[in-house]
Amino acid sequence: MKNLKDDEAAIRTLMAKFAADFNSGDIEAIMTNYVSDESLIIFDLVPRKDYRGAGTYRENWVEMFSHFKGKPKISIAGLGIYVDGNVGFGYSFQQITGTDKHGIPINRAVRVTDGYRKVGGNWRIALEHVSVPVDLKSGKADFSPKL
Amino acid sequence: MKNLKDDEAAIRTLMAKFAADFNSGDIEAIMTNYVSDESLIIFDLVPRKDYRGAGTYRENWVEMFSHFKGKPKISIAGLGIYVDGNVGFGYSFQQITGTDKHGIPINRAVRVTDGYRKVGGNWRIALEHVSVPVDLKSGKADFSPKL
Repeated sequence: MKNLKDDEAAIRTLMAKFAADFNSGDIEAIMTNYVSDESLIIFDLVPRKDYRGAGTYRENWVEMFSHFKGKPKISIAGLGIYVDGNVGFGYSFQQITGTDKHGIPINRAVRVTDGYRKVGGNWRIALEHVSVPVDLKSGKADFSPKL
Repeated sequence: MKNLKDDEAAIRTLMAKFAADFNSGDIEAIMTNYVSDESLIIFDLVPRKDYRGAGTYRENWVEMFSHFKGKPKISIAGLGIYVDGNVGFGYSFQQITGTDKHGIPINRAVRVTDGYRKVGGNWRIALEHVSVPVDLKSGKADFSPKL
């Protein structure tokens, strides 16, 4: 089981690096945590069905950071991981805090699941799904930071 | 690569069985597609952080079906799968149609990602994440069936 433990540790390191790269606001560094080709698929929070490919998804980060004054911060909690061979998946709760361009404080808690692939010996995020729950009656999203 | 192809085919069969079980409205059958223990974790559409454990998640299906007049139907499109060893992950677009208790037509398109585990030789859903995109300005969920 040593190998599985090593792989789980490597994926935890990947996620910690992702958070550090997010907090530094360095989009090129953030993108190194994802597979770099057209196979990347993202279901993001924003009103768009999906992002396909690393180049397309990179634009999302430019857009996202443009809404903030200064650098938003992310924290990752409750990370669970399953891995075997060159494939893994995981889940976590991520909290993004900061101040938007209008000076309004942002405190957003999201649920994240990831699909991981080991590519050239390195673990990368190949699939990411970010969401908040929704009240079906009102159609309103639940952004309460209590998640 | 024969084994990986076999496993991908087995997961496709699992998802087709899940859809058939959903369409039959048989909650016991639906639950056989998920891991049966406390390790099951679900991030669902509804305003709840998560469901942990098969017993807890089963209650969600009772609640869900109770809102419909007759049996809602599901269709699964665009299924993509990565698998290695005893772990896999996948993504799809799922459309749920039916009529609610008040006679109002329901047509809901959701994005779904799954984590799969092979347990006792059988593939099961171990992690499921269901969402719709959200407009960050209005806080409104996007339920347009165009997904």
